[in-house]
Amino acid sequence: MPGNTFGQLFKVTTAGESHGGALAAIVDGCPPGLELAVEDIQGELDRRRPGQSEITTQRQEKDKIEIMSGVTEGKTTGTPILLIAYNKDAKSEDYRKLKDVYRPGHADYTYQAKYGLRDWRGGGRASARETLARVAAGAIAQKYLREKMKFEVVSYVEQVGDIKADIDYRQVEKKDVEGNSLRCPDKQAAKEMVALIEKVRAEGDSIGGVIRGVIRGVPAGLGEPVFDKLPADLAKAMMSIGATKGFEYGSGFAAPAMRGSEHNDAFCANDKCKIKTCSNHAGGTLGGITTGEDIHFRLAFKPVATIGKEQDTVDKDGNKAKLSAAGRHDPCVLPRAVPIVDAMAALVIMDHYLRHRAQNS
Amino acid sequence: MPGNTFGQLFKVTTAGESHGGALAAIVDGCPPGLELAVEDIQGELDRRRPGQSEITTQRQEKDKIEIMSGVTEGKTTGTPILLIAYNKDAKSEDYRKLKDVYRPGHADYTYQAKYGLRDWRGGGRASARETLARVAAGAIAQKYLREKMKFEVVSYVEQVGDIKADIDYRQVEKKDVEGNSLRCPDKQAAKEMVALIEKVRAEGDSIGGVIRGVIRGVPAGLGEPVFDKLPADLAKAMMSIGATKGFEYGSGFAAPAMRGSEHNDAFCANDKCKIKTCSNHAGGTLGGITTGEDIHFRLAFKPVATIGKEQDTVDKDGNKAKLSAAGRHDPCVLPRAVPIVDAMAALVIMDHYLRHRAQNS
Amino acid sequence: MPGNTFGQLFKVTTAGESHGGALAAIVDGCPPGLELAVEDIQGELDRRRPGQSEITTQRQEKDKIEIMSGVTEGKTTGTPILLIAYNKDAKSEDYRKLKDVYRPGHADYTYQAKYGLRDWRGGGRASARETLARVAAGAIAQKYLREKMKFEVVSYVEQVGDIKADIDYRQVEKKDVEGNSLRCPDKQAAKEMVALIEKVRAEGDSIGGVIRGVIRGVPAGLGEPVFDKLPADLAKAMMSIGATKGFEYGSGFAAPAMRGSEHNDAFCANDKCKIKTCSNHAGGTLGGITTGEDIHFRLAFKPVATIGKEQDTVDKDGNKAKLSAAGRHDPCVLPRAVPIVDAMAALVIMDHYLRHRAQNS
Amino acid sequence: MPGNTFGQLFKVTTAGESHGGALAAIVDGCPPGLELAVEDIQGELDRRRPGQSEITTQRQEKDKIEIMSGVTEGKTTGTPILLIAYNKDAKSEDYRKLKDVYRPGHADYTYQAKYGLRDWRGGGRASARETLARVAAGAIAQKYLREKMKFEVVSYVEQVGDIKADIDYRQVEKKDVEGNSLRCPDKQAAKEMVALIEKVRAEGDSIGGVIRGVIRGVPAGLGEPVFDKLPADLAKAMMSIGATKGFEYGSGFAAPAMRGSEHNDAFCANDKCKIKTCSNHAGGTLGGITTGEDIHFRLAFKPVATIGKEQDTVDKDGNKAKLSAAGRHDPCVLPRAVPIVDAMAALVIMDHYLRHRAQNS
Repeated sequence: MPGNTFGQLFKVTTAGESHGGALAAIVDGCPPGLELAVEDIQGELDRRRPGQSEITTQRQEKDKIEIMSGVTEGKTTGTPILLIAYNKDAKSEDYRKLKDVYRPGHADYTYQAKYGLRDWRGGGRASARETLARVAAGAIAQKYLREKMKFEVVSYVEQVGDIKADIDYRQVEKKDVEGNSLRCPDKQAAKEMVALIEKVRAEGDSIGGVIRGVIRGVPAGLGEPVFDKLPADLAKAMMSIGATKGFEYGSGFAAPAMRGSEHNDAFCANDKCKIKTCSNHAGGTLGGITTGEDIHFRLAFKPVATIGKEQDTVDKDGNKAKLSAAGRHDPCVLPRAVPIVDAMAALVIMDHYLRHRAQNS
Repeated sequence: MPGNTFGQLFKVTTAGESHGGALAAIVDGCPPGLELAVEDIQGELDRRRPGQSEITTQRQEKDKIEIMSGVTEGKTTGTPILLIAYNKDAKSEDYRKLKDVYRPGHADYTYQAKYGLRDWRGGGRASARETLARVAAGAIAQKYLREKMKFEVVSYVEQVGDIKADIDYRQVEKKDVEGNSLRCPDKQAAKEMVALIEKVRAEGDSIGGVIRGVIRGVPAGLGEPVFDKLPADLAKAMMSIGATKGFEYGSGFAAPAMRGSEHNDAFCANDKCKIKTCSNHAGGTLGGITTGEDIHFRLAFKPVATIGKEQDTVDKDGNKAKLSAAGRHDPCVLPRAVPIVDAMAALVIMDHYLRHRAQNS
Repeated sequence: MPGNTFGQLFKVTTAGESHGGALAAIVDGCPPGLELAVEDIQGELDRRRPGQSEITTQRQEKDKIEIMSGVTEGKTTGTPILLIAYNKDAKSEDYRKLKDVYRPGHADYTYQAKYGLRDWRGGGRASARETLARVAAGAIAQKYLREKMKFEVVSYVEQVGDIKADIDYRQVEKKDVEGNSLRCPDKQAAKEMVALIEKVRAEGDSIGGVIRGVIRGVPAGLGEPVFDKLPADLAKAMMSIGATKGFEYGSGFAAPAMRGSEHNDAFCANDKCKIKTCSNHAGGTLGGITTGEDIHFRLAFKPVATIGKEQDTVDKDGNKAKLSAAGRHDPCVLPRAVPIVDAMAALVIMDHYLRHRAQNS
Repeated sequence: MPGNTFGQLFKVTTAGESHGGALAAIVDGCPPGLELAVEDIQGELDRRRPGQSEITTQRQEKDKIEIMSGVTEGKTTGTPILLIAYNKDAKSEDYRKLKDVYRPGHADYTYQAKYGLRDWRGGGRASARETLARVAAGAIAQKYLREKMKFEVVSYVEQVGDIKADIDYRQVEKKDVEGNSLRCPDKQAAKEMVALIEKVRAEGDSIGGVIRGVIRGVPAGLGEPVFDKLPADLAKAMMSIGATKGFEYGSGFAAPAMRGSEHNDAFCANDKCKIKTCSNHAGGTLGGITTGEDIHFRLAFKPVATIGKEQDTVDKDGNKAKLSAAGRHDPCVLPRAVPIVDAMAALVIMDHYLRHRAQNS
């Protein structure tokens, strides 16, 4: 199967290139009767769009979304929801010089190798612009889940370069995340991160980072044995976001050095006899199925591939070439990636929620 | 969809519990004409089976595989291949006392929460025994890929507890991995790891670790934009293995602290004009599609949940309880997990190979 | 995707050839807590097995089914159910002479053309024996549906050759179907059909027929717009049974000659205000979604391809050849096909029932 | 899974209601490098659009298609192709009176029963207008297949009411079909059919018919055992078109009365040693896999549900009501359904072609 569909029962199929006519998503399988308006989606898109602050690219794109089907009299009908955002003011000719030269760290070469041709305008389908469609679809999932459970997904920037936020994921609220342009709830660290980003930008360079995601309010029982474990599907969702290099949840890469007696989360029960775990090294799942505790994970991003500094490369015939970008690019993708992580998390939970109730109603 | 199928074109569906009648896999979509005998599969299963060395569980299970369909006169026919291994000598009654008590770190509670009942004998479907079926299916994929390309997957133990192997993944050969019972190609580290494992076993405890996987010989062009990027599907495959807590590939969690100018792998071309990259921070893919370079990744495992030490827990009604295992369990899952990682890696590449040639022949 | 899986949420994957080790099905997605024993399945298999009456093949196959996983303490666990029936006493050598000659009306040539080789023993995967796995899986679906709704599927032989039963589908009960070896509830017609079948058998020939299926008790609302309409999925299910040539439901091929004013089923409401239709030309669905009325359809079968009479054919090199079967074959497949139709009908309804409740709970 | 996607490797997902913003299709999996322009698609849409002749509805809809992604410099890129046609001049208010009344023969009641609400404007998602997206996607498949093989699909009207064309399907050429407004290559029958359609329209009534489809030039080997037989997938494709009531291929419903010795198509070989069959009762497949002979089938359509005559029905509360349509509706859907049948046939062949080459390259 081609790879532009995510989810099985809440099924999102996206299309669109950076400089084509539009970005679009068809969301199929949304339960009927959900109140849905453009405003429910636009807010999440605004968190993702370029030009929203001084540390992101200065390209101004409105990314205005339209709902073209699947909603009548303000409610979802259960039929496919077509979401579309038209591309505007794309300066495709800027990219013509890249037609036959492969940008390091980009998908130019691999798309060419795969398909024998590629849309070289603005990165084509490999452009980060495709995430617009994910964010739009994810906004619908978030809305539905909030109505069905105490669902909340709070992602935030935890690290930029070697600067790490000092904050407990259990304490972070959405408003803390939106409190600064970096989407890092540790204000002091956020300031240092901004300074670092401005420094690397001035140097014509870029920098990576880590996003922490926290999903709250998911009941016990979601996830499917054995291949579609919830953390497996979450890992796939997150690693499908461009520029990601690593995913860990719960104890993550700290687990290997732990003893079983230390790592096992003891079960306890509160006075309502609800089963809980005292700690949460598990990160919210056991055997791939949710425990009812918070699902928390970390996602590593590489530094943005497009940089101002001159780089060595080759052209399509293998001849040496030099490249330096003269565009309006993000020196650090992290702040704008936060809503993408939120969206993908919501899509995973939504899909597993419907899968669970299909079998276990 | 239920979650017991992996892959789309090389499609593996598995069934079976720890103490049921059998473990089985149906492999559908295998190309016809591949020479296939039990011996092609049994070798990989023997690497996975319990009781193979002094540091694994002393349970002796032969895990003898039978091919029940899809092969005629020694060759695959293109129709489904049914692989089956019967369960023998399962001591189910040992588990009866666990029927109403939830083992910390295990899936007892979550299966109960999901399904309202569970097979409590030996962990049921959540038992690591299910990986037998993955390894069997993966052996077929490995054989096919080796005939089609210079494919090789070499996974090995890189870390146990806080002991790390000091070895370059580019130098590791399969025979180095099989050189000791730990499947760690750094002999000195392997000795220390064995000592640590024996120590934690003596303490009635367990320990985690890290497996490194290296996939060689995959041509450029495999992987699908945008959701089914090769590393996304690889992440899912690996994180679907029980006890895993994190996945990273290429630069992984080291990427966040790097600059773009440092992280970007410059393209170069060898004298045959074949495009290559000089370094491989990318880990073998760009934009989710293979570059032709080695795919390398690391996978974190938590310490085994079953330990001899007494632990606090609750029963199904929320009453406090104490638990301590008196079984024959692995104190460290890593050595036996190596062939599982190999298998899942092969399944991912195989499926993407068929997907690629469907669209791009 | 390979084609050995049916259904999306109640997902049946089958394997096995006529003369291989076994026929098997993995049923994934069955809701947990369903009481299930071998006896629930064996009865349906006995309706399908060879040698059950004087007008079917005299081959005696017991087709004893075993449940190898997915059931504990008499109940389904929600994990995959592996069903297996071992092949016994297959006389493969009888088929060796057919290795290089293509039997008219059989899949010998097409499998060879597709795969470049084939399992020539007993028809291999193309043997009608594969339907054993369908019937076993369908028996589980039937049991579940009967517990959830007033579900009943009653299929029966309506035509053999040019002899047609004179009976109203609304009046037929399961016991009437099982009242004679032909599974035709019109006793007089059944006698004539038996006579016809004996006649064609004596002539070394075979004969076709029509099965009528009636599905009762399905609530309104099942089926998915626009491609997975219930009758579309039902058509696929039925036309996937070997030897079928046509499917019609409701008014079927009589509809073209009707006027809209005549064909439209007027809506009416009974005193409980339940919406009903006065007639049922629709055949139980409108716009691909069930109305709550009976779903009724007809399925045409060609005469069995294996006949005693000598036939012209060619071998794999295109040389002329003669063939005549000297085996124990059914002269008419219809009576044994009835439980297969029942099974496929149940699988379709079961899958759509789960799909519906995933989105619309 | 929701039901708005068709195909597995050439995967078409559609969206859109009759009176919403637009009809759209995302075609994912199209091989790269295919020359594709709007003109390649628009021609097929023009064959489907309303208002094209005196016997179809007089609504004038231009149905102008736009390609929004997946094509660069005139060629497909291998990434998703978004096709969109905006809705214009929809007179939604005409339908308000139908909001609470169920039209006989329509999906009003079943959508309401399924989803609890519905888009009552113009039939919503159940409108025949959704087929626009199928036809657009099918045009791409047709173009690709014509470049790869001597592929041709020729569908035509064979029956309207009780008037049947007297013509051999093997002789029909595309230009004969387009020779009259009825798309019936028997000119004399076409005249009588037109007269009949005008008669039933004058009576405020409607009439059904039969379309014959012929697919030529498909090589041997396409189709998958056992559930995804080519005729099974073809049956599903055809029965997913609104208003269809029956599907038969090859000998179809005439097969039951035939003897095996009569029905079996003897194999022969021409001087190039290519295996052929002398007759084609099989209809182009054996065991669900193509033989290389023509695939031919017949598809029954019911009379259009919307009629001018007054009809009995009920409203949503079960109260009796009367209905008569005062719109611009087709009295017979057949002529405009021909390109839809062509499209669905092409989608089936295209998908199976890619599936076949994935496994058997």
